[in-house]
Amino acid sequence: MQASKDLRSPIDRNAVVRLIDEHRPDWSLQQAFYLDPGIFALERELWFPRQWVIVAHASEIPEKGRYILRQLFDEEIIVVRFGDGEDDIAAYYNVCTHRGSRLCTRDGRGRLLVCPYHAWSFRLTGELQTTRDLPEGVDPEALGLHKVPMKVVGGLVLCGLAAESLPDIEPAAEGLIEGLREHGVASARIVARKNYLTKANWKLVLENFLECYHCRPAHPEYFRVNGHVKVTAMRDADKAVEWQEEIDQWHSVIGDAEFNKGAWEAGDLDTMPFAMHRKPIGSGRLTLSDDGRPVSSLMGGRKAYDGGESGFRIGRLSFLSAPNDYLTMFQMVPRSANETDVILTWLVDKDADVDVDAEKIAWMWDVTTVQDKKITEDNADGIASRAYRPGPYTPLESQTAFFVETYLSQMRTLITGERGEAKAEWTAPAQLFASPKAACSTPRR
Amino acid sequence: MQASKDLRSPIDRNAVVRLIDEHRPDWSLQQAFYLDPGIFALERELWFPRQWVIVAHASEIPEKGRYILRQLFDEEIIVVRFGDGEDDIAAYYNVCTHRGSRLCTRDGRGRLLVCPYHAWSFRLTGELQTTRDLPEGVDPEALGLHKVPMKVVGGLVLCGLAAESLPDIEPAAEGLIEGLREHGVASARIVARKNYLTKANWKLVLENFLECYHCRPAHPEYFRVNGHVKVTAMRDADKAVEWQEEIDQWHSVIGDAEFNKGAWEAGDLDTMPFAMHRKPIGSGRLTLSDDGRPVSSLMGGRKAYDGGESGFRIGRLSFLSAPNDYLTMFQMVPRSANETDVILTWLVDKDADVDVDAEKIAWMWDVTTVQDKKITEDNADGIASRAYRPGPYTPLESQTAFFVETYLSQMRTLITGERGEAKAEWTAPAQLFASPKAACSTPRR
Amino acid sequence: MQASKDLRSPIDRNAVVRLIDEHRPDWSLQQAFYLDPGIFALERELWFPRQWVIVAHASEIPEKGRYILRQLFDEEIIVVRFGDGEDDIAAYYNVCTHRGSRLCTRDGRGRLLVCPYHAWSFRLTGELQTTRDLPEGVDPEALGLHKVPMKVVGGLVLCGLAAESLPDIEPAAEGLIEGLREHGVASARIVARKNYLTKANWKLVLENFLECYHCRPAHPEYFRVNGHVKVTAMRDADKAVEWQEEIDQWHSVIGDAEFNKGAWEAGDLDTMPFAMHRKPIGSGRLTLSDDGRPVSSLMGGRKAYDGGESGFRIGRLSFLSAPNDYLTMFQMVPRSANETDVILTWLVDKDADVDVDAEKIAWMWDVTTVQDKKITEDNADGIASRAYRPGPYTPLESQTAFFVETYLSQMRTLITGERGEAKAEWTAPAQLFASPKAACSTPRR
Repeated sequence: MQASKDLRSPIDRNAVVRLIDEHRPDWSLQQAFYLDPGIFALERELWFPRQWVIVAHASEIPEKGRYILRQLFDEEIIVVRFGDGEDDIAAYYNVCTHRGSRLCTRDGRGRLLVCPYHAWSFRLTGELQTTRDLPEGVDPEALGLHKVPMKVVGGLVLCGLAAESLPDIEPAAEGLIEGLREHGVASARIVARKNYLTKANWKLVLENFLECYHCRPAHPEYFRVNGHVKVTAMRDADKAVEWQEEIDQWHSVIGDAEFNKGAWEAGDLDTMPFAMHRKPIGSGRLTLSDDGRPVSSLMGGRKAYDGGESGFRIGRLSFLSAPNDYLTMFQMVPRSANETDVILTWLVDKDADVDVDAEKIAWMWDVTTVQDKKITEDNADGIASRAYRPGPYTPLESQTAFFVETYLSQMRTLITGERGEAKAEWTAPAQLFASPKAACSTPRR
Repeated sequence: MQASKDLRSPIDRNAVVRLIDEHRPDWSLQQAFYLDPGIFALERELWFPRQWVIVAHASEIPEKGRYILRQLFDEEIIVVRFGDGEDDIAAYYNVCTHRGSRLCTRDGRGRLLVCPYHAWSFRLTGELQTTRDLPEGVDPEALGLHKVPMKVVGGLVLCGLAAESLPDIEPAAEGLIEGLREHGVASARIVARKNYLTKANWKLVLENFLECYHCRPAHPEYFRVNGHVKVTAMRDADKAVEWQEEIDQWHSVIGDAEFNKGAWEAGDLDTMPFAMHRKPIGSGRLTLSDDGRPVSSLMGGRKAYDGGESGFRIGRLSFLSAPNDYLTMFQMVPRSANETDVILTWLVDKDADVDVDAEKIAWMWDVTTVQDKKITEDNADGIASRAYRPGPYTPLESQTAFFVETYLSQMRTLITGERGEAKAEWTAPAQLFASPKAACSTPRR
Repeated sequence: MQASKDLRSPIDRNAVVRLIDEHRPDWSLQQAFYLDPGIFALERELWFPRQWVIVAHASEIPEKGRYILRQLFDEEIIVVRFGDGEDDIAAYYNVCTHRGSRLCTRDGRGRLLVCPYHAWSFRLTGELQTTRDLPEGVDPEALGLHKVPMKVVGGLVLCGLAAESLPDIEPAAEGLIEGLREHGVASARIVARKNYLTKANWKLVLENFLECYHCRPAHPEYFRVNGHVKVTAMRDADKAVEWQEEIDQWHSVIGDAEFNKGAWEAGDLDTMPFAMHRKPIGSGRLTLSDDGRPVSSLMGGRKAYDGGESGFRIGRLSFLSAPNDYLTMFQMVPRSANETDVILTWLVDKDADVDVDAEKIAWMWDVTTVQDKKITEDNADGIASRAYRPGPYTPLESQTAFFVETYLSQMRTLITGERGEAKAEWTAPAQLFASPKAACSTPRR
């Protein structure tokens, strides 16, 4: 959909298909998928435009006329509130239709979006307002801003690159809205945000995020705080029994209705994946803080702490972790073949104390993501060696293996146009769970 | 003329021709022309070697044996005064003919040019002096320095990359010499120089430089000082009348002879473009300073301020602005597909007070070029988006549109060898003027 | 042997062969060989894997379990002492066989090599120790570390990229061992190391290192200290006589046995080149220090200073300079088409005074290599010009010319599979010598 930035010979697509066909199921990808700029260009053309991702929280544009600049893959977009309705939000590529300049150079507020170059102005709804200087015969209707597909779901602003290739977002919106509402996501406010620029291919970032096998050696704090590591970070029958007891105990306290909440859609090329899952934090902890004690006020109208965490998977690159009193929002943003922004945003209830301690709130995922950045970059460095060969995923990395199989199957279809038969082993395995690094011990059957 | 630096498949030239043929006249270029390294490589091979550009002012090498290193596109060259005659200047590629080392590593003075690597030495006229160590059978005559085509025009040192592809410079030299003489360019001295490295394709730098439509939103200082913005920065009948009155008033004061001075050659592949045009600064200002008052002594033997500015266009990438008491010399130097050096040099009469205030002299074009750098870089950023589409040039951007049409026509001819028919709309439109950002209200008919 | 990092069209190999065939013997290479990333990629695939290079000194891993990370071309490797025997050293690519992570992130010591990512551990001998978590059906035997070909020769740890393409190292090991022993190389310790990252193609670094024609203009300190410059840096009959007298005098003092020591193998694709040569330092100097006086204690059990220096050439990219009381080890490490690490390591006898003055020891080669970095980078800059043309090597650059001819002949064979006839002028010329910048005046006939 875009003129290539490099007119020299592009990647040999048949060579990519051959690499895909040589893949050994449940082993890691061949080197080129982690390093090759040509494959990244192919993903940029074929795969990224099919993904809905979180770009902002609705509270970032609180009133009409407020606009913010955000990253959508390698594109800068303007997210603007054009009206007084809750979901009166639009998104545009940050490109003036006159000479192509960046239209907005910073977040701001106004009745119009005015280009600093030649003062062409646009309504908040995208239409060109300036028409006086147009050459004869040029239709101003054709010079409105380029819209970015956008949908607000429970306070989360989701965007995708290209309407024609995006899957229908409605099933995901419907499937997630109740869970988001219960956690008060729409009425939250941001207390902290941090970008962990990771020098690694986006797939390595995701592969790491989707398994907890590394939690014991790499994440001492996370390992100490989260009970589920007894089954997600190790294979130990005694520990598994302990964890099952903890789950049963939690079940008996919160009741069937609360315990059985969940949502699940593995997704494929035409269906947006999403999931919501609940589990106890464990060890009597009330929230995901260093000492397990509350760090903000209860969200979503909840009356008491129940010691649980909800994990949300929203499309393939956005996630949300929700204990009772705060939210951590995850955005994985591929930047180049070997760079990925990992943006974490922490939110609390909008009416929470203005003096909440943002450091305490951010603590667990900050310390964990700093560690993830390091191990993922070391992973990328090792993979660049001529000695790298695909290696076997262990049973504790089944979500990672599933992502890899899904990715290859989709890329093959996108390149060849052939829709592969769903291979048996590529369907969601029993131990797939909603929350990253937080698979729980109650497999769905 | 040079072995490619990258032996991988070069750009598909047919694809470039197709892009050219898809161009919509009077709309901006397709994305690839602003971003693609392959197209830049093609320009480097085909288009740049046909351009004469200013590389220095003769006063920078005041006596025999003085040499300076200067940039000619992506090449470093040595400009040296080899004799006592006014124009005894030569230019060489800064490459030793022995092993290819840089010959000079800094500006200097000497009887010979001596390579610091193996002490091979060359006469100021380029011949190899060192012959003692040559292997048998090697002809020293074949090892002289590689000459750079060079011509001194009224104190300006002009160079081009390749004698075989450069147009004849004599018509331009003859057409400009009188104007340069009247402004005392040959007897000027430099008071300041500054490089505004702009992260944008050179064509965007030029497109911006050739129109003043952006002057109102982007250049408050320039807009305040220059009267011509009444017709170049806006389309306002009342302002146009005001400006015409100012022109008529100036005409009556300076007389017909002075008023009608000018030169014009649009240029094509085999003809070097050049222009000189005079206009009043306006509002009773004597020169292009913040308060309109003189900033140095009169140049070129002028007896009194006449409130005018002469604008010179010298080839396609060099310009000169000349009010009565100082000069601003502009060099646009393409560095890569997305980097351009914009070098400004300010000169005054060689006998001007040693204490002239360089900051006052540089003020207008410094503040304006800092702004131009920013808006041009924002332009480049926006164009990199997948949402970029060519947009329409307005009537106030006709010089920019003309440059774009000319560029495409020339590139097409250079790639295909076919000489396009001069399309009616590609001939110099009536409102084309000599001075950048300074088109005046007296169209030539 | 490695999946390409860029699946776009690779270099046109026929174009490279044509460039080779256009080469004019005894003239420098065509531009592309010094600049083109595609040719570097070809060298990386074909030429580098045939080279044995020094990666470390055995003293850097003094006891069992100690391991260090070192650079082998663009690869990071682990060099580890796995046992108590003197040569119980192994080298592995620093890549975990599970998911490809860097296995070690710093030098260290341990009973196992443990990956920080998922805690997979490996024995010092390379076998996978962790097997508990392996998926069913996966053979742990196939998941040992990737070995790097390694050989310890007289305390020097030599490695190569690929066993299948490396020449037999035994003849070189046998040819050099006696000389290394006499200089006590195995029982040395490191006192200083410095990396002179040089922004130039590795062949330019080597071309510079293999000739002393530049020593007079570029290396005043080296020129003052080393007597051999009388014949290696200039062509002067009187100076040559002086130097011959100095050699004869030295010969008479040290005797025939000591004087005639030496080793020589020019090498080809299947034979590793090596050389050892002795010469007097000259002017009564005892060692290669600023004032000629000792800077450490005698090495290799030597009883008295004899005023000589031994020069070792070990493969094509490693060198050793050995006066009586210290060693300078040279590693040329190609990093990219225009970057080369030049790593110098200075060693003294392991029992030398702990207070030896490392600055005095490093002085000559440090000051010389700082200068070499500068002149080589200027060489690279000049060669990038479109005005660069191959130039003639003088008789004082015969070793450089020989390297260039050898390189081209080998590359041609590696690309085409045709084994070129050994051309008469490509055999080792009489004036080829073992020591870089230190050819002596006694040509072998």
